[in-house]
Amino acid sequence: MNSFVGESTRWLDDVKWNKEGLVPVIAQDRFSGRVLMLAWMNQEALQLTAESGKAVYWSRSRGCLWRKGESSGHVQHVHELRLDCDGDALLLEVEQDGGIACHTGRESCFYNMLETGRWVALDPVLKNPKDIYR
Amino acid sequence: MNSFVGESTRWLDDVKWNKEGLVPVIAQDRFSGRVLMLAWMNQEALQLTAESGKAVYWSRSRGCLWRKGESSGHVQHVHELRLDCDGDALLLEVEQDGGIACHTGRESCFYNMLETGRWVALDPVLKNPKDIYR
Repeated sequence: MNSFVGESTRWLDDVKWNKEGLVPVIAQDRFSGRVLMLAWMNQEALQLTAESGKAVYWSRSRGCLWRKGESSGHVQHVHELRLDCDGDALLLEVEQDGGIACHTGRESCFYNMLETGRWVALDPVLKNPKDIYR
Repeated sequence: MNSFVGESTRWLDDVKWNKEGLVPVIAQDRFSGRVLMLAWMNQEALQLTAESGKAVYWSRSRGCLWRKGESSGHVQHVHELRLDCDGDALLLEVEQDGGIACHTGRESCFYNMLETGRWVALDPVLKNPKDIYR
């Protein structure tokens, strides 16, 4: 048992799940402070995350649990788990294996910046996606 | 015209709006690096945000545009606007007037930390909500 979970699982009921039973989750790098990604969890994913200390999301596109890093190796080790004031959003402070959260090989998924009416892709690709997903 | 908008508004079409026509938006403090809140925007809110340089959200509870700070004075001045890799989440880098984003009078809405199966409220209340909303 780590420091997140206790004897009761009532803390799961404090989360306001949406109609699909999901809640949006922000992952922030504990060292760089960068917001790495926004993903979604269902109750099972949140419980598994808290129990294992590794981020487990719900993939809306694939319709299944997504153990972050299962194919890329880019596991997120969770150091802090926070819930917002109205209980409908979560924030994870993570240690990002490989320093890459995005499937494009970048540190963060938020690499498109708005500039004079266009989204401009910033941030270097640290690793070729072909070499991440073999 | 500020540095966000240009002659075309096609950048709005690059955002993948959900079934309700909304997109989740993360606001991050550009100085402290704290994730302040997660809120939602519709297309009009995003356009107004980009044009004015101040965060305008869509209040799902009230069903109307929410010019952040309109009653509290806690306006968010937007320095950067980012879209994620799959276009369904936004990140704002903001300068937070008053250093308070949360309606509870705290810097961030994410003040509940999971500890041994309980959400523990951290972070000081910087201003009594009674004195924020008169």
